[in-house]
This record gives sequence, C-alpha cells and structure tokens, in this order.
Amino acid sequence: MFQKILIANRGEIAVRIIRACQEMNIKTVAVYSTADKDALHMQLADEAVCIGPSKANESYLNIHNILSAAVLTGAEAIHPGFGFLSENSTFAAMCEEVNVAFIGPKKEVIDQMGNKSNARDMMKKADVPVVPGSDHAITEFKDVKEMVDEIGMPVIIKAVAGGGGKGMRMVFEEKDLEAKFLQAQSESKAAFDDDRMYVERIITPAKHIEVQILADHFGNVIHLGERDCSLQRNHQKILEEAPSPTLSEETRQRICQSAVDAAETVGYENAGTIEFLVDTDENFYFMEMNTRIQVEHPITEMITAFDIVKEQIRIASGERLSITQDDVTLTGHAIECRINAENPLFNFAPSPGNIDFLNIPSGGLGLRVDTAMFAGSVIPPYYDAMVAKVITHGNTRDEAISKMKRALNEMVIEGIQTNLDFHIDLLHDEHFRNGRYTTDTLSQVIIPDWLKSKEANG
Amino acid sequence: MFQKILIANRGEIAVRIIRACQEMNIKTVAVYSTADKDALHMQLADEAVCIGPSKANESYLNIHNILSAAVLTGAEAIHPGFGFLSENSTFAAMCEEVNVAFIGPKKEVIDQMGNKSNARDMMKKADVPVVPGSDHAITEFKDVKEMVDEIGMPVIIKAVAGGGGKGMRMVFEEKDLEAKFLQAQSESKAAFDDDRMYVERIITPAKHIEVQILADHFGNVIHLGERDCSLQRNHQKILEEAPSPTLSEETRQRICQSAVDAAETVGYENAGTIEFLVDTDENFYFMEMNTRIQVEHPITEMITAFDIVKEQIRIASGERLSITQDDVTLTGHAIECRINAENPLFNFAPSPGNIDFLNIPSGGLGLRVDTAMFAGSVIPPYYDAMVAKVITHGNTRDEAISKMKRALNEMVIEGIQTNLDFHIDLLHDEHFRNGRYTTDTLSQVIIPDWLKSKEANG
Repeated sequence: MFQKILIANRGEIAVRIIRACQEMNIKTVAVYSTADKDALHMQLADEAVCIGPSKANESYLNIHNILSAAVLTGAEAIHPGFGFLSENSTFAAMCEEVNVAFIGPKKEVIDQMGNKSNARDMMKKADVPVVPGSDHAITEFKDVKEMVDEIGMPVIIKAVAGGGGKGMRMVFEEKDLEAKFLQAQSESKAAFDDDRMYVERIITPAKHIEVQILADHFGNVIHLGERDCSLQRNHQKILEEAPSPTLSEETRQRICQSAVDAAETVGYENAGTIEFLVDTDENFYFMEMNTRIQVEHPITEMITAFDIVKEQIRIASGERLSITQDDVTLTGHAIECRINAENPLFNFAPSPGNIDFLNIPSGGLGLRVDTAMFAGSVIPPYYDAMVAKVITHGNTRDEAISKMKRALNEMVIEGIQTNLDFHIDLLHDEHFRNGRYTTDTLSQVIIPDWLKSKEANG
Repeated sequence: MFQKILIANRGEIAVRIIRACQEMNIKTVAVYSTADKDALHMQLADEAVCIGPSKANESYLNIHNILSAAVLTGAEAIHPGFGFLSENSTFAAMCEEVNVAFIGPKKEVIDQMGNKSNARDMMKKADVPVVPGSDHAITEFKDVKEMVDEIGMPVIIKAVAGGGGKGMRMVFEEKDLEAKFLQAQSESKAAFDDDRMYVERIITPAKHIEVQILADHFGNVIHLGERDCSLQRNHQKILEEAPSPTLSEETRQRICQSAVDAAETVGYENAGTIEFLVDTDENFYFMEMNTRIQVEHPITEMITAFDIVKEQIRIASGERLSITQDDVTLTGHAIECRINAENPLFNFAPSPGNIDFLNIPSGGLGLRVDTAMFAGSVIPPYYDAMVAKVITHGNTRDEAISKMKRALNEMVIEGIQTNLDFHIDLLHDEHFRNGRYTTDTLSQVIIPDWLKSKEANG
C-alpha cells in the first residue's frame, strides 16, 4: 500500500480524499493555489505545497508544478479527484513517467473514452446500446434523409469538426430537415472548411441514469448500482438520488450489466461511471463514460455502505477488488443536494465571497455532509462554487427526503447567496416528489414555476 | 400517529428526539430550565416552554410543570429521553392520567424492573441466568456459609435495607467471610434497624454486554444485537462498541435470545435494554433492565441502519413493529466515544463552562456526531457534562477505529476541559485494541497507565 499520496485537487473532494487516506494510515500532500492558502484541504493534509497563483491553469491545471510537488515530497501516487486534471491523459502519462501512480484508469482508456466517436465504437463492440445515428460522416442530404427514416425524429445534426455549437442544429419536424442540414453544413464549411456531418437521434424526454463501476487490474469488474441524475440545469446536476425512483428492476439489472460489459470491453481499471439516457419506455442509450470519481459518488456509498475512494486507492496500489458483485447489496435510498454559492433568482449566477457564519447540519442516522467550508472560509471566484454536499440515507425514498428537509432546515450559510432555499422548495415540488422528472424538467418546469411563485410572493 | 410530542429532556438526546420528530412530520414541544434558555433543543423545537429554574428537581424533574406544559401545548405524547424522569413510574402514571401517551413501557413494568429483587424473580421465571446468590434474606452466618459453598467466591454481602454503601462488603477470601458478614450486618442494624442480608457472587473479571430490545403492544419482541459497554469508570460508560469485539457467535445468539425471553416474560413494550455480565468463559448473568432509550443507542442504529427513536414513537402511537427479527441484519462495526466536559488529569472532574470554539468532525461515510453544542453555547454545571457523542461505523472494527481517530483528530473544543485527548489515546491503547477489556480494565489498567505516561511526558 502507498505510504504517501498527493491530492491534485481542492475543495470538498480534496478533503474527502485526505480523510480517506487518514483512515487508511496514508500520509497526504495537499497542493494549493495562493487563493486557497487558508483552505481546509491544505490545513488537513500532512504536507501542503503551493503550486501557483489563483487561476486554475496556473495552479490546479499546472502539470509541471503538481508533478514537481509529488516528486519533491516523495508521494507515491496522485489522486486527481474530479474536474481539473482528472481526465487528462497527458497528466496520467506524465505521472507514469515520473514513476508516480495515477489513481485512475490507464491513459489509453482515458483517451479512448474521451473521444466520443471511439467511445461509441467501443460500446457497439460491447453490445451496449448507443443513441441511434450515423456511424460515419455524411455529406449528402439523401444520406441524412435515409438515416432519419431509419432512426426517426427528432434529431441533432452536428459537424464532425464542430465545437462551441457551430455547425449544429436540432430538428424537431421533418419538414425542416433539409434546410437545417444545409445551414449546419454551410456553417461548418465556413467555420472549419469541413462539410462532414453526423446525424443522431435526440432522446427526449429522457432520464440521465449512470452506473458506478469498479474494476481492478485483474479483470474483475463490478457495478454498485445506478444513480438518477436527471435534475440538471445547463448540464449541471443539482440533486441526485440512488436508486432511481422510477427505473424498473428489470431495466436496472440490464443497464448495470451493460455498464459492466462496457467497462470489461474497454479494459477499464479503477472507479468509473457510465452515463445513459433512458427514454420513457426504458430503452437506454450510452451517453458517455467518466473515467474518474464523481461529485455524486456519496449516494452510492450510502446505499452500498462501501467507500469508493478507499477502493480507488487500493486498486491503484495493485490490490484486487475487496468485494465481489455478490457482496453488493443496495439498501434504502440516498439523496444528495449540491449546495452552491449562487443566486437562483439571478439565473443561478455564482456568488463567491466570505462565509461569515456556517451551521452544518449534523446528528441522527443517515446524514452526511461533505464540505471544505467553515465559518470564516472563502469561496474564491476562480473555481466551482460548491459550498457543501448534503447527503441523506433512509430506508425509503420518503424517509431520505424527510431527512433532507430536516437537514437543510438546520443549515445556515451567511455572507453569500446560495441555492439552499431553492433546494428546500425543490424537495416539496411535486415534479421531484413523483420521481418522474427527466433532464428537461428542472429548466422547463420546476425553475419557471419556482420563479413565478417567488414573484407572486413579492 | 401523534401530531405533537413534548420532549421532557435536554441536551443531545432532546435534540436527537426533536430531529426524529421533524423527520416524521410531528410537531415538537421543548421544555427548558432557565439555565438552558439559549440551548439548541429549545431553538430547534416548534414550541418551547420554560419549566423552572436551573436545578433539575425544580425543572427537568418537575412533573407538575412538565405535564402542565404538555396539556397547555396540546402535546399528545411525551418522550422522556434518558435520565431525569425516564424511569419514573409515577411520571408514567401521571401522563396516563392527563391522557398523554408516555413513550416507554407501562408503569407497572418500570416498577417491576426498577426493583432488583422483583427483576431477579422475573428473570428466573424467564429462564434467564441471574447472578448466583440468595433469593431470600439471610440473618445467620451458617446460611451465608452454605450459600457461599454453593456459589463460590468472591461475593458481595448487601443489606436488604441498604443504600449508599452502608451494610455492604465485598469478600474476596473465604477466611474474611464471617468477620465481614458480621460487620455488614451490625452496620445495617445500626443504620436501618434491620439485620436481613443478601449474598451474591461477584462476577469478575466480566464484560458488560447489553442487548437492545424492541417490543410492541401486540406481543412482538425483537432484539437488535448487543453492545459491549465494558469500558467504564465508576459505572460511567465512556466508549461503547457494537458488536462486542470478543463475544462468540454462539453466545451472542444465546444472550440475545435471553433478552427477548426476558422482555416477553415481563410484558415489555417499547425500546429497552437488558444488561448482562459475561465472564471469561462466556457465562452470562442478568444485571438489570433499563426501561428507556440509552445514551449509546446510536451504535446499534449504525450496525442495523434502523432508527430506534422513530420506532419508539411508532410503537407508542399503537403501531406494530415495523420490522421482524429476520429483517435485522448486523452490518460492520460501530463505536461511540462520549466526549465530556471533564478533566481526566484531575480525576475526570466536571468542567462546565462556555464553549468558545467548536469544530464538529464531519464528512465521509459512517461518521455521525450527536450533539446539542455549538460555538458559543454553554455547558451548565447543573446537569451531565456531555459535549458530543462521536459515532463511527466501518466494515470492520479496525475501520471504525480508524474513522474515529480521524474524526477525533479533527474535533476542536475550546473554552472548557474535555476528555477528547484521553479518547484519542484510548484508541491507541493495546487493552482497547485487543478488545478483551472488562469492566475493571479502564480504572485499573488504562487510566493508571495513561496518567503515568502523562507524568512521564511532563
């Protein structure tokens, strides 16, 4: 087992990883930017190294400084957390070069799953359903028409060379297909000098269901069940639950098995998540694989009583999975609310600043709060605006919701704007309560209704 | 189900009960003494009623004021917590008279189990082993001799009328038996004008093992496994764990079954605990029954994922047990450290006062802290000196210990003396680590060793 690990991250996930290391008797090295000089993660670690100024690309994305810190402190492994360098295959490769273990999958696998086209090919190889669409570039409208006749409407037309929305069109009515295809293609030609296009079915309404995977270096792969992360705003998840409140047991088993098949096929190692879209008939389609720990991993930990971060470290050190699929029992229901420094009344604009007073809810069975904040600490404007992840676990979904209400009612955050009150209202919203929400529900129904109710109340 | 419950207690257990009620959508009424006018329990409840001045017998033991508060606020039930009026059958009876449900067993059962002689008789009826000794009063030495020949040494001689240690002698060598008996008897005669004595075997060394029981009004009784509470100082538990680190599975099953038999025989209702002494050969003997929730109930909740306080409320409202014995699975290992305002270097003298700064450890899987304290709150000198109960749960005992170390290292309490550092050292003590400690180990081995090490370190 490693004697010392460097945590190449900040905030609550850095704190989370440091605590796991402490519980495993592993020394820790924190890295921090000048903006984080008083941050909890650098206070809790055994050693802390400043890796640059506030801006992330000069500090938390500064591969050279982070690897220097690892070598200088004698860290044998680096945990990248999520975000920052966690899915950067160059970083993984360079760790290997300086003989420091990267706690994650092999660089080739990061690359393969980071390329959507490669990932799609691998999934087909693994017999995992992918969103219907063109496997190869299309340049002629007749081929688009043929494809749409096969896969149905609505579709999204995307430039192969595309980026930033350029050369992309959503088409909801077949009469618009030709015009929109030609617009997108000419946009792509103008912007990228490339007229090759893809066509893909839009799966809507759909749930975002993801499966947690663990795999060791010996070919053992297991899943820890699924998470329902459909409550999103601009692709930012704000409340997640495990298990999904609506998925049938049969689909759950099939989707989890597909995730295991996918991980086996790509030779995956360490913890990873396979994200699917699930339509109203419970057909599911591979969306992408995240080759790292995820923000919402605690809800899976709560229903499995299994520590994913500790297992990541054990796997990276060369150990076999400490459990088999038969050891995994999903018990009860867990929910996570992401409490962010943002103002829901102003389009959820970030609200960094000083936290003057903070009361973290605590006590009782099945409540967990992961945070790097304390009274007097600062949310810098340079990074994400996470204040805390509040996680509850109950025997039933209703109990988990009741606990969350109790917990959020006890939470006090002064000095900055947060989405705490929005979360409390969300827990009462019928579209959340009935569990049938999809990826559109938050933006298209819940937030507009909530804003109206706020206006009505002055 | 009740709409409103009055909590006739203070401190962390009052907060614990209020939170359970909130999660069950039940309104709460706190009662408080003038010393607790800013206490968390009165802040968290929906209503709060002052029931008298600081001294407990004028407030938290003031039956009249508490019942008046219940009637005035329309509370349908009273949860007594532990200590104070929780095992007072008069209080239970008076609750009934004013038509308020007492969340606990029937008053007759409280009485019966509160009387050691009655309790002993009931246990014999239930075929539960009791400590060998005289079932009836003895006045002649020859009967003492005969009893000791039967039950063996060492023994304790106790006056039937005894109290406060008067008329009590421990006898470790048979040659001292007659002299000590006559001393004890004449002491009793002088003090109580009563020469009737009991003789009982002293079970030593022994573990204090207790079994958590739940019983409804329909005759259903289940157990939730055992707790090892042998780490005691002057009969005050300071660290408890579940399950016991040394008990064999066979003894565990027998002792738990005995506890169920005992509860069935006395017609027990609601949550209760049966305490046993277990000798080195794993013979076990009934010690006493606590007819209330206990301080250390959270460790049982952690290994069963079952909320005992919520079940108490459901049972008192007339519901059947929500689980059967087959639903009870003991998972992993849990430990509770009682962090008290006391000075271990001065004979654990209470150290009430203001808490200037408080950092409650949090985050990660399997950590729970139950407390009523916050930065700025006060530990009054009138009641117990509890600061917080820190509870960890791991897949193994080692993991639970590692988590506890991590948690206690993060805990900061400023302004008062506490036993926090003592607890941290205790977690490293080999007599704790090997799990074979008995009720004497803390006072006779661990604390003396600890004091010596403190002296050695200046």
